[in-house]
Amino acid sequence: MKTKAAVAWKAGQPLTIETVDLEGPKFGEVLVEIKATGICHTDYYTLSGADPEGLFPAILGHEGAGVVVDVGPGVTGLKKGDHVIPLYTAECRQCKFCLSRKTNLCQAVRATQGKGLMPDSSSRFSIDGQPILHYMGTSTFSNYTVVPEIALAKIRSDAPFDKVCYIGCGVTTGLGAVLFTAKVEAGANVAVFGLGGIGLNVIQGAKMVGADKIIGVDINPERQEMARKFGMTHFINPKEVDNVVDAIVQITDGGADYSFECIGNTQVMRQALECTHKGWGQSIIIGVAEAGAEISTRPFQLVTGREWKGSAFGGARGRTDVPKIVDWYMEGKINIDDLITHHLKLEDINKGFDLMKSGESIRSVVVY
Amino acid sequence: MKTKAAVAWKAGQPLTIETVDLEGPKFGEVLVEIKATGICHTDYYTLSGADPEGLFPAILGHEGAGVVVDVGPGVTGLKKGDHVIPLYTAECRQCKFCLSRKTNLCQAVRATQGKGLMPDSSSRFSIDGQPILHYMGTSTFSNYTVVPEIALAKIRSDAPFDKVCYIGCGVTTGLGAVLFTAKVEAGANVAVFGLGGIGLNVIQGAKMVGADKIIGVDINPERQEMARKFGMTHFINPKEVDNVVDAIVQITDGGADYSFECIGNTQVMRQALECTHKGWGQSIIIGVAEAGAEISTRPFQLVTGREWKGSAFGGARGRTDVPKIVDWYMEGKINIDDLITHHLKLEDINKGFDLMKSGESIRSVVVY
Repeated sequence: MKTKAAVAWKAGQPLTIETVDLEGPKFGEVLVEIKATGICHTDYYTLSGADPEGLFPAILGHEGAGVVVDVGPGVTGLKKGDHVIPLYTAECRQCKFCLSRKTNLCQAVRATQGKGLMPDSSSRFSIDGQPILHYMGTSTFSNYTVVPEIALAKIRSDAPFDKVCYIGCGVTTGLGAVLFTAKVEAGANVAVFGLGGIGLNVIQGAKMVGADKIIGVDINPERQEMARKFGMTHFINPKEVDNVVDAIVQITDGGADYSFECIGNTQVMRQALECTHKGWGQSIIIGVAEAGAEISTRPFQLVTGREWKGSAFGGARGRTDVPKIVDWYMEGKINIDDLITHHLKLEDINKGFDLMKSGESIRSVVVY
Repeated sequence: MKTKAAVAWKAGQPLTIETVDLEGPKFGEVLVEIKATGICHTDYYTLSGADPEGLFPAILGHEGAGVVVDVGPGVTGLKKGDHVIPLYTAECRQCKFCLSRKTNLCQAVRATQGKGLMPDSSSRFSIDGQPILHYMGTSTFSNYTVVPEIALAKIRSDAPFDKVCYIGCGVTTGLGAVLFTAKVEAGANVAVFGLGGIGLNVIQGAKMVGADKIIGVDINPERQEMARKFGMTHFINPKEVDNVVDAIVQITDGGADYSFECIGNTQVMRQALECTHKGWGQSIIIGVAEAGAEISTRPFQLVTGREWKGSAFGGARGRTDVPKIVDWYMEGKINIDDLITHHLKLEDINKGFDLMKSGESIRSVVVY
């Protein structure tokens, strides 16, 4: 079949809208009509050329929602008409990782996904016989895409695509880091470094579980208002205090119980660790640092009881937890609407990247 | 009263045996006759002058066992004749830290203890009216010492002092890191860096909880035999492999579930983290690094599911857990006898430091 898609031909160049050949689903695969997709920093990171694992030409996009159009042989859990969110972190429920009960990092399709290919080591996308690579196993910047069944979360059919697509990455990454990785408990004090989309979702996660003080840290004071709306109780502008760590220790009488780094800056990651409480503070790294950058601290920080962790896709198991988060949105437990600041057509997708770069948008969503 | 004690007058000088004046116990304090004390690397570290917080003149020693001789006013939980182990990490059961249920790092007497003083900011030791400082709140290199009640674990009276004194630091630090900090589960694969006294106690902790592979790492192959006796299943000499991390990943099919750094070397701490399993590996720092040294890694190591932690006094609550560990020793669940390689008189205490420095002893114990 043919599909309309935004193709990334080379690093550093705008996407172009193309008519792409799409092969139907093979064994264990599902053809999905993407109805909406968010534009995430990770797409931009890869497109910019800074991602050392970026491959081209490819169809980017990993934050979509859509409808099953066709299923390949061997698919038993999904059928035509089901509403789904593609998962860049699959959940096979069979591998050592899934069975460990300790991580969400299913490795079932990891190797081929990293090469921009489907599990059988080939691509479904092509133009004039030239293969176009998949991206993060999802390629949601295409109106139709093929995804392994184990990389699709089945969601309720009354959820609006142009909102819940954001659960495919940003919402789950922030909310999940609080709920699934840190397991923040009611009454805890939380510090959040970076008040972009991820930080706001961390904040609403902290509010959802009954955190006490929720301290936001950002050099842009304009982000205060939205963060307060989502549950932030204290704001620190690093430009206005002598020492961010001391400021947090003071507000919390000893340090944050949990901190979250939502920027990708290794210096901030150190602050995030060191602002946590002696004896039990946990610091969770969410942001993706530039290639080669390293985090450092004195080991004394850990020996006196702090823990340094990271979170990928919020520690969420895609097929198990994503449908729950969709329910929470539909029940009004979490706010997504205010985070979707722009709706675009696929033809205007490059404008979405510009809005993100300039900081004008929290999340731009392409609606097909 | 008068007591015989080994006094550290200055950094870098041998201890001298002195007759010291000892004031009786004040409010909440207990006079203890020390029957035996281990000589630990931390005593050596302070005596060497490398410890930036070291204070002199002082009576060192923090790994003792003895008998209550007298109690001050307000002491309700101990009486004359009780057998006790002094605790350099107190357990007041009242402070924010004790009540958190998340840490063993009671802060009740921390500030004065760090200054070499009792909680009322004075010393009980003196010579010719000149105060001699306490050390780690215990000063077990004195035949008699005064300790706050909250810093004494009451133990069974049939336990031999010259063995269970080692539970006052080394045994608990190693065993506890496995049981209380990491909470290693049966079937887990464990890597232990450094096969000195702490490492051997980590190994027997791992064996005690039913770990599967227990991999010891040391540049000294002579430590293999004892480590195997304590439960080590695999040995790696870093001088004999290209890459320690790769060797551990290979033996464990993906990485250790838990690793323990028992040396105090920040480069080894990094290896200990990076040899753990993607998705859930936990690395516990036990060793004390030199002042100013920092640990580093790429944040990707944490974002892909590894956790970096530390452990002080094995995460054990002194009054609650130390008596249990004494029971385990008496029940034959753990081996201490083979770790006590030398017994000395107080007069020969400097020989004990020499044995430690040369690597000849695992643990030397002074018996009064």
